[in-house]
Amino acid sequence: METVTLDDARRVIAAAEAKAEEIGQPMNVAVVDAGGNLVAHVRMDGAWLGSVDISINKAWTARAFDITTKELGENSQPGQDFYGINASNEGKVMIFAGGIPLTRDGQTVGGVGVSGGTGKQDHTVCEAGATAF
Amino acid sequence: METVTLDDARRVIAAAEAKAEEIGQPMNVAVVDAGGNLVAHVRMDGAWLGSVDISINKAWTARAFDITTKELGENSQPGQDFYGINASNEGKVMIFAGGIPLTRDGQTVGGVGVSGGTGKQDHTVCEAGATAF
Amino acid sequence: METVTLDDARRVIAAAEAKAEEIGQPMNVAVVDAGGNLVAHVRMDGAWLGSVDISINKAWTARAFDITTKELGENSQPGQDFYGINASNEGKVMIFAGGIPLTRDGQTVGGVGVSGGTGKQDHTVCEAGATAF
Amino acid sequence: METVTLDDARRVIAAAEAKAEEIGQPMNVAVVDAGGNLVAHVRMDGAWLGSVDISINKAWTARAFDITTKELGENSQPGQDFYGINASNEGKVMIFAGGIPLTRDGQTVGGVGVSGGTGKQDHTVCEAGATAF
Repeated sequence: METVTLDDARRVIAAAEAKAEEIGQPMNVAVVDAGGNLVAHVRMDGAWLGSVDISINKAWTARAFDITTKELGENSQPGQDFYGINASNEGKVMIFAGGIPLTRDGQTVGGVGVSGGTGKQDHTVCEAGATAF
Repeated sequence: METVTLDDARRVIAAAEAKAEEIGQPMNVAVVDAGGNLVAHVRMDGAWLGSVDISINKAWTARAFDITTKELGENSQPGQDFYGINASNEGKVMIFAGGIPLTRDGQTVGGVGVSGGTGKQDHTVCEAGATAF
Repeated sequence: METVTLDDARRVIAAAEAKAEEIGQPMNVAVVDAGGNLVAHVRMDGAWLGSVDISINKAWTARAFDITTKELGENSQPGQDFYGINASNEGKVMIFAGGIPLTRDGQTVGGVGVSGGTGKQDHTVCEAGATAF
Repeated sequence: METVTLDDARRVIAAAEAKAEEIGQPMNVAVVDAGGNLVAHVRMDGAWLGSVDISINKAWTARAFDITTKELGENSQPGQDFYGINASNEGKVMIFAGGIPLTRDGQTVGGVGVSGGTGKQDHTVCEAGATAF
């Protein structure tokens, strides 16, 4: 099974941090592997305390459902197919922007999660991380 | 890092209690420090039992995301940026009025949370507490 | 039903704090009412963060089983009658010294819990609080 | 209040990783700040999945009680002062070796936690991390 090494995770985190600095918004960044288990996490100085958990769970969600949390969020609004999914998995499912699957040869092998700003900021920083993978 | 002492917390609680008595609504009032950890809590005689937890978690939420829970609540409605955030952090994120960050020199160093009445009452009492800080 | 008012709780906490200062050990002190619900809590400056939860749960345990947590602890050692009781009630049962029932006319109407030092220190400070009730 | 920056955490983690490689045992390493909140975590390739949580909670425990988890573990055996403490704080209290407070000027300002080997290995790697702080 392809997966995410600690070196991979650090490369992803470094790219995300660089983007976070560029936009001037401190972030939490987390990376999980093919099993959805945490490989690495950083909280930049000044980033929200409540986003430690959210960044880790966005990364997990992106891997667990092979989807960005932004798209899953759209599918989880009232009346949509997955409305209520955030009550599953003991509350680990995050349904707002900032989580992206890490893929290799078209297959999901991990996830990256970012939390600390607006949905748009989180997604932008997260994309910078995912691209570095 | 600046934080909140027990003396600070008592001053905040006393001001909130005075306002709660003024409007005739018994309240739970809680104060957390820079790390989001509880410094002090009181439940006024006759205040809701279920609000012990809510007041503590409102204080935590205000500190954890550097925002009033009133504003976070607006951002967490269906279709908004943070819809679903209340499922994170093991259910500790409160998304209705009554939590306000405690700030010093423009920096969040703690939080105060109030619960026991309507959203408007909770926020009013909470503001009285935050102002005393 | 007799119970514990916020004024009662404050008197208990003040006595416990005075004793904690006398022995030079900052403490967390919590008081619960006849229903086992938190009435008030304080964390003295410098007291352990992990003792917020423990002080509240010692107070709850003392009320919930009408017994000091010191005595319950003796009964909960391997081979004793209540061995394993600390896994019940979602982990809220504390089985070491520092929790004492608050009684009126021979009836338990609340509890006080202290955490922040050795078992002996916690129990001493807790007794000072209970006596003030 | 002094605390732990991301740069501090990375220095601690790098020293722990170097020691883990030296003894040939992949580890999880986590660092928390003065409030007990996670600053950074890494899981070295091949380290136990179940140790993600344990490393984070060892770091938290060391900060929360200003003590090594090795010493707390000795005090938490049957018949000792803190027997049963691991049921508190929703199961976050780790009572075996591998967690050490991070101190500055004699004051605890954070914690480091290591998990992935024997108690002796975890403590050795953790000490290397703490010393780098």
